Amino acid sequence: MNGRFIPVSKASLDICDIGFVSDVVVTEMVRTFRHAPFRLEDHVARFYRSCRYARLECPIHPEEMAAVSLDVLKRNSSLIATDEDLGLVIFMTPGISGLYAGTGGPQSASTPTLCIHTFPLQLHYWADYYRDGAHVVVPSIRHIPPQCLDPKIKCRSRMHFWLAKEEAQLVDPKAVALCLDLDGNVTETPGSNFLIARNGVVISPSSHNILPGISMATVRDIAHDTGVGFEERDIQVYDVMNADEAFLASTPYCLAPVSRINGVRIGNGAACGPIFTRIIDRWSEMVGLDIVGQVLRVKSGAALSDN
Amino acid sequence: MNGRFIPVSKASLDICDIGFVSDVVVTEMVRTFRHAPFRLEDHVARFYRSCRYARLECPIHPEEMAAVSLDVLKRNSSLIATDEDLGLVIFMTPGISGLYAGTGGPQSASTPTLCIHTFPLQLHYWADYYRDGAHVVVPSIRHIPPQCLDPKIKCRSRMHFWLAKEEAQLVDPKAVALCLDLDGNVTETPGSNFLIARNGVVISPSSHNILPGISMATVRDIAHDTGVGFEERDIQVYDVMNADEAFLASTPYCLAPVSRINGVRIGNGAACGPIFTRIIDRWSEMVGLDIVGQVLRVKSGAALSDN
Amino acid sequence: MNGRFIPVSKASLDICDIGFVSDVVVTEMVRTFRHAPFRLEDHVARFYRSCRYARLECPIHPEEMAAVSLDVLKRNSSLIATDEDLGLVIFMTPGISGLYAGTGGPQSASTPTLCIHTFPLQLHYWADYYRDGAHVVVPSIRHIPPQCLDPKIKCRSRMHFWLAKEEAQLVDPKAVALCLDLDGNVTETPGSNFLIARNGVVISPSSHNILPGISMATVRDIAHDTGVGFEERDIQVYDVMNADEAFLASTPYCLAPVSRINGVRIGNGAACGPIFTRIIDRWSEMVGLDIVGQVLRVKSGAALSDN
Amino acid sequence: MNGRFIPVSKASLDICDIGFVSDVVVTEMVRTFRHAPFRLEDHVARFYRSCRYARLECPIHPEEMAAVSLDVLKRNSSLIATDEDLGLVIFMTPGISGLYAGTGGPQSASTPTLCIHTFPLQLHYWADYYRDGAHVVVPSIRHIPPQCLDPKIKCRSRMHFWLAKEEAQLVDPKAVALCLDLDGNVTETPGSNFLIARNGVVISPSSHNILPGISMATVRDIAHDTGVGFEERDIQVYDVMNADEAFLASTPYCLAPVSRINGVRIGNGAACGPIFTRIIDRWSEMVGLDIVGQVLRVKSGAALSDN
Amino acid sequence: MNGRFIPVSKASLDICDIGFVSDVVVTEMVRTFRHAPFRLEDHVARFYRSCRYARLECPIHPEEMAAVSLDVLKRNSSLIATDEDLGLVIFMTPGISGLYAGTGGPQSASTPTLCIHTFPLQLHYWADYYRDGAHVVVPSIRHIPPQCLDPKIKCRSRMHFWLAKEEAQLVDPKAVALCLDLDGNVTETPGSNFLIARNGVVISPSSHNILPGISMATVRDIAHDTGVGFEERDIQVYDVMNADEAFLASTPYCLAPVSRINGVRIGNGAACGPIFTRIIDRWSEMVGLDIVGQVLRVKSGAALSDN
Amino acid sequence: MNGRFIPVSKASLDICDIGFVSDVVVTEMVRTFRHAPFRLEDHVARFYRSCRYARLECPIHPEEMAAVSLDVLKRNSSLIATDEDLGLVIFMTPGISGLYAGTGGPQSASTPTLCIHTFPLQLHYWADYYRDGAHVVVPSIRHIPPQCLDPKIKCRSRMHFWLAKEEAQLVDPKAVALCLDLDGNVTETPGSNFLIARNGVVISPSSHNILPGISMATVRDIAHDTGVGFEERDIQVYDVMNADEAFLASTPYCLAPVSRINGVRIGNGAACGPIFTRIIDRWSEMVGLDIVGQVLRVKSGAALSDN
Repeated sequence: MNGRFIPVSKASLDICDIGFVSDVVVTEMVRTFRHAPFRLEDHVARFYRSCRYARLECPIHPEEMAAVSLDVLKRNSSLIATDEDLGLVIFMTPGISGLYAGTGGPQSASTPTLCIHTFPLQLHYWADYYRDGAHVVVPSIRHIPPQCLDPKIKCRSRMHFWLAKEEAQLVDPKAVALCLDLDGNVTETPGSNFLIARNGVVISPSSHNILPGISMATVRDIAHDTGVGFEERDIQVYDVMNADEAFLASTPYCLAPVSRINGVRIGNGAACGPIFTRIIDRWSEMVGLDIVGQVLRVKSGAALSDN
Repeated sequence: MNGRFIPVSKASLDICDIGFVSDVVVTEMVRTFRHAPFRLEDHVARFYRSCRYARLECPIHPEEMAAVSLDVLKRNSSLIATDEDLGLVIFMTPGISGLYAGTGGPQSASTPTLCIHTFPLQLHYWADYYRDGAHVVVPSIRHIPPQCLDPKIKCRSRMHFWLAKEEAQLVDPKAVALCLDLDGNVTETPGSNFLIARNGVVISPSSHNILPGISMATVRDIAHDTGVGFEERDIQVYDVMNADEAFLASTPYCLAPVSRINGVRIGNGAACGPIFTRIIDRWSEMVGLDIVGQVLRVKSGAALSDN
Repeated sequence: MNGRFIPVSKASLDICDIGFVSDVVVTEMVRTFRHAPFRLEDHVARFYRSCRYARLECPIHPEEMAAVSLDVLKRNSSLIATDEDLGLVIFMTPGISGLYAGTGGPQSASTPTLCIHTFPLQLHYWADYYRDGAHVVVPSIRHIPPQCLDPKIKCRSRMHFWLAKEEAQLVDPKAVALCLDLDGNVTETPGSNFLIARNGVVISPSSHNILPGISMATVRDIAHDTGVGFEERDIQVYDVMNADEAFLASTPYCLAPVSRINGVRIGNGAACGPIFTRIIDRWSEMVGLDIVGQVLRVKSGAALSDN
Repeated sequence: MNGRFIPVSKASLDICDIGFVSDVVVTEMVRTFRHAPFRLEDHVARFYRSCRYARLECPIHPEEMAAVSLDVLKRNSSLIATDEDLGLVIFMTPGISGLYAGTGGPQSASTPTLCIHTFPLQLHYWADYYRDGAHVVVPSIRHIPPQCLDPKIKCRSRMHFWLAKEEAQLVDPKAVALCLDLDGNVTETPGSNFLIARNGVVISPSSHNILPGISMATVRDIAHDTGVGFEERDIQVYDVMNADEAFLASTPYCLAPVSRINGVRIGNGAACGPIFTRIIDRWSEMVGLDIVGQVLRVKSGAALSDN
Repeated sequence: MNGRFIPVSKASLDICDIGFVSDVVVTEMVRTFRHAPFRLEDHVARFYRSCRYARLECPIHPEEMAAVSLDVLKRNSSLIATDEDLGLVIFMTPGISGLYAGTGGPQSASTPTLCIHTFPLQLHYWADYYRDGAHVVVPSIRHIPPQCLDPKIKCRSRMHFWLAKEEAQLVDPKAVALCLDLDGNVTETPGSNFLIARNGVVISPSSHNILPGISMATVRDIAHDTGVGFEERDIQVYDVMNADEAFLASTPYCLAPVSRINGVRIGNGAACGPIFTRIIDRWSEMVGLDIVGQVLRVKSGAALSDN
Repeated sequence: MNGRFIPVSKASLDICDIGFVSDVVVTEMVRTFRHAPFRLEDHVARFYRSCRYARLECPIHPEEMAAVSLDVLKRNSSLIATDEDLGLVIFMTPGISGLYAGTGGPQSASTPTLCIHTFPLQLHYWADYYRDGAHVVVPSIRHIPPQCLDPKIKCRSRMHFWLAKEEAQLVDPKAVALCLDLDGNVTETPGSNFLIARNGVVISPSSHNILPGISMATVRDIAHDTGVGFEERDIQVYDVMNADEAFLASTPYCLAPVSRINGVRIGNGAACGPIFTRIIDRWSEMVGLDIVGQVLRVKSGAALSDN
């Protein structure tokens, strides 16, 4: 944090930090496979793109960011089991608010707060997705449009996602909110990109309305490699209801099947369809680890340790 | 903080708090006049309205919230000069993210984080407003619409306001961003309500798009008392350019004159017009303190102490 | 029907009628109190306004329409108990589709189909509203905007309301869908106007987006008579959550209390608040019948007859 | 109808059917060529997609639907001349409204009403299209957006199309309304998809705003087969005015040329351009019947029989 | 023109003037009654409001503008008959385009072009409005929204009004286009404000979308004086169709009755209703001239002089 | 002008011309390279497409238009140096307004005004673009949407562009305004198309919102020829900030590099990137003239002649 190594339990944010006072935070989350970070360079590059949009100048260069991240991972990997993995979080804020701290005017900031930290991935919490498929529910809350705040940057402005989630979970306590944009097009969920598959083609909502997810990019790359089509276009709830399969793509669990939208079964209702299987198998191969197996296995362990 | 009194310098937020991780924070800011809080009950009531919208259950009741606030103010008032005043901040978050803390699933939260703290108002930073009038600049960034996140709650989702401010300050480093809504109507600035006066009537943008500001409500009350009209309707940049006067209404400095929009003079370009004067004089009378004088006087002191 | 009296059980619509083939139907529903129709002239006048907008020429004049309606009511009133009441339905369509009937081109119609029929009001189905308050849920489906089809006409274009209802009932099988317009403002439910009360004032959503309901007009009239304020303006979900009371206004049950929106309690959560009581009492007085009592009493009867 | 065969002249709908009361109807129309249905499976598949979106569960399976349709066609084909063809209509509604029928609450329905019926295609009514080209006129009424009711389902919610048609026919009594969406993009007409051709490429409006027409799909297939390009993108009135050719695609008459928009000639103003001819010739070949000839010939017959 | 008096026949604009090259022109039109200008100060004040919005600095002061206008009127009044009247036009542009003139960069301008000229009002061209009522037709073209170019300034950006007029006149060669805004609300016509009357109240569309017309302001003033209500709110085509009366308000002919919209009769279809008569009579009284009589009489004269 | 040759210094427009009074003008600008017009046929074709949309009938045919243009160029080329070039402007208006000229009703026009004129290109005014790159700034003013006035026609309705430019130049007096559409997508600048390049692909905003620029079409053609990709899709400010290069494409200067948007450097901040160089070199080759050299060289000359 800000150039020093400290234990996470001691990592905290000044309550006058603009990252908290005005929610100005750019961030990234990377995960490891077998303790090695996945597409770290892509995450770092996106981080700097977010900074540029937010007009925050990062005090270190991308190369240094990657090196420090690797260092942080190395220090923390020894603390987890070999079959566990880490999430690595990078975040940066403009620093302390002069107004709140009594040191400056209402629009002044101190030096940026930059922090890189890790946490052990609790993958078992997503195990249900692989057993039953996730249930996405469309709330009445719409996603924030790019002319207010571009969803292509990875920031923490997620108060509307919180409302969306709360609303979706009125339908089903395990539901994941799937937000529409102001025109009624499907966008993304609070923590993942959303994809459908139809007639052997994976389809993503138009890129202008969503985070350019790195897990989604991985799906696209694998689709290309394995002869599955990949397209990007405006889709609506009708398309999801009548898709063959649907997925959530997100850093911690990579890719998860979606089996229902608003209570309606997608495809034949099976959790894991053939396109899902084709992609996750190839991905597992790439990273030398059974991705679904890791989620499901750790679950049992967790269940045991609960006793 | 969470039921204990600690010095502000030790007040910090867990970096896994959902208030920081996902920007879910409801908040209020109250100021004192002569060390007594102004319209504390109104702030507390709005806080509970915000909580209801955000589905956050506050662990204490409104009466207790008011009582604790008074207690916090009392403890801190002794630390400032008699002619200075305090800002009191209340904020609440859903608590620690289970995902980041490794203690729960992606949507779990712990007990809410509730904090009440104060800071000495650095009023001199606004002194220029009373000398030259503020300069508002309309950025290309639009305000977030109510169907995404209702601006009627006081939360900290202000990343778009940061972008708006950065953009406005390209025109003038002291400029205040005045955001339009998606239809091109004037809404508010990152830290204040915006009002115009024309033909003896104070006009506020429509209430559905803006924070129901308590300083603005005070202006309305004073307008009623002093025979000034007060209306609420959709206004556009044309109306601001052709207003007689324009104002910012905000808790710390109460009401400040605006003399320019996008570089164009409003009215005759004098900082403080007759409606402004009528309202601020009455307000000063109500609170037993020369509001403008306090801002301008403290300024000199600050300038001295800088040496 | 089309000038002849026939039993409802024999009343049917040609499947080639444009009222069914293309959903071109203007309609009204009137109810009786003690077998006398309530504000029949207002309903008839609105029917002719709807016809004008839909460019359907009604074959009879308003006076004749009212006279026939009274006649139909008289004939049917003898079939129900004295403490029961009737719903009277008027509808008109352009007539048979030439295309489907094989008698004309794709845009030809025969003479209009005009029908007036009655049905016994099954008021007990709304009894829960008076016990627990209705639960309104905001679906993701938005109300159709006036530039497509003006909600000010009473027609049967309610496919989107069906979808809205289905979606709302995923949250609660008894929920009533409360649709937002494309800008996120509250409009109406599939079968009723929606109103809130705050600080002694009844507030209706802006009239341009909703049916000019005759029950709502009655509420406005009674509000005027009894010293309750009545305003019309754009309201959002935040306003409903923070209202003191909320209501549904609809021909069959007149006015019903709403106690929850999206699972959140409105006011103190009691079904019938003071404004509701003041209005319904006056209304009951006007029509010489205990409106709530009729709903609740008949319920018991129905329950008995179910055995 | 609901499992029984009855003559069309006796087919009627209960006036309390939700398909009429609230316009909840999903439907399909298939036509025959030489008494054999065209792409029946595609129509049936789209019917089930519409049902899924509308949350109506069809009491029979797709295979049975196709089989019954064939049976209905066979029974009715004997009633028409060999050179005539049939239209087959499938529709389904949620059934009788409990409210109107006095048998249930306001949101209850009985068992679905399902009906399959035929009518002899009166193709001569479209003969003018092939002589002079159709005249499309853009009304001020906009098409309903997908976030209210997705135009991708085939339903009968066409009240706005009626208004659009009435408005368009103020310009020209034979005009066909061509609706724009809320953003000003061309969508479709009340009974057909709309296509343009420019530089040898057929262009369809974006698919998210229109019915996925089966005639249009046939055009796309034929375009692919015959070396004509086919694209899908947002088009505006400017593009139509400056197209080389324009078409209507619809089940009864397959494909018809459009020669004018808002009174402005498209291309050189000839009814049937080279792309039109190439496609309709191939289509005629596919179905073993001169499609245009059938329309024009029957016309003469009809003219005769008028005497 | 630019400070010199020249005959209108010699008044011309450089083809490199930015007023023509890029359509940057602010303007006003005033009319005389009995050779005296009507509300000249209001027109001049609006002219300076338009200039401020357009960031054009007028080289003379408002008082001088009024004085010169009176002078121009005086010089030209002698050229017309005593029972005729003049239109006076003021316009200003940024001056010659440096780019086109070869004297400067793409964004440079010379000194402003300011011109005041008159023309004899050919009032007889509007005589039909007083005989049959005007026919307004709603085109598919929408009015430009305030966030692009505020309709509250009087400028000459009327290309979209030209398209709207052309489209409306497909329905009726004498029709006047009545444009909707992007949300489907009624705004104004290419040359006049539009008003309706219902239940004794004159209603104007919301002011944020239309020119603040001085004839309309006169109607409002007269309404107040004569006990007619005057309101401002969003209205749609439904409201116009179901109004009692409707009007066009415009400088040359003051106020004209509207008898039809989209072919549908408004009220009882008579040209001049009671509210119209009450207002125009009072207006005629104010200016000492029979306004309608002047339009109708001059017509006959014009007819004669045609021989 | 209107069929006669006159010196530009004598070319002027009647102040009653509808092209000035109501801004109804369709236009084109062509430039020469070595005194030969570039893609004259494409400009003429676009001119006729604009006319068709505007319902203006050009009195001469396209072939004649091209021939006259060549003639005008020939006559004027002798007046400039051999290393200079000409801009040729075509414009057409509906002619004199009957209303203003006192010769007709409010909607009458005389014969069209058609004018073809030239001016010497003052290329040196753009020299800074090639030294430092242009600076684009996004104003709060949005581009006019196609449903009001289609930006695909080349007309002179640029009042909103004037406002946009004025606003952008508050940030930087040399800035070029880059307008967003109502949804926040990048469109174009007041005088040029805007393009970005990323990963070796040139990307244009979607074509429905912008002028189909002929310089942009040339870029596309050259991109195809030289192995650079070319795509068209909705882009936002984020995409521009994170592009590798960005360009303005416009008839006078062909293609110019953009180095900053809203003060943020694009790519590495160098004016001329590799894609720019590849395209401009090929273009220079095509026209036999060093395009950048011509701009920069003439600059020096101009600088000299300023002394």
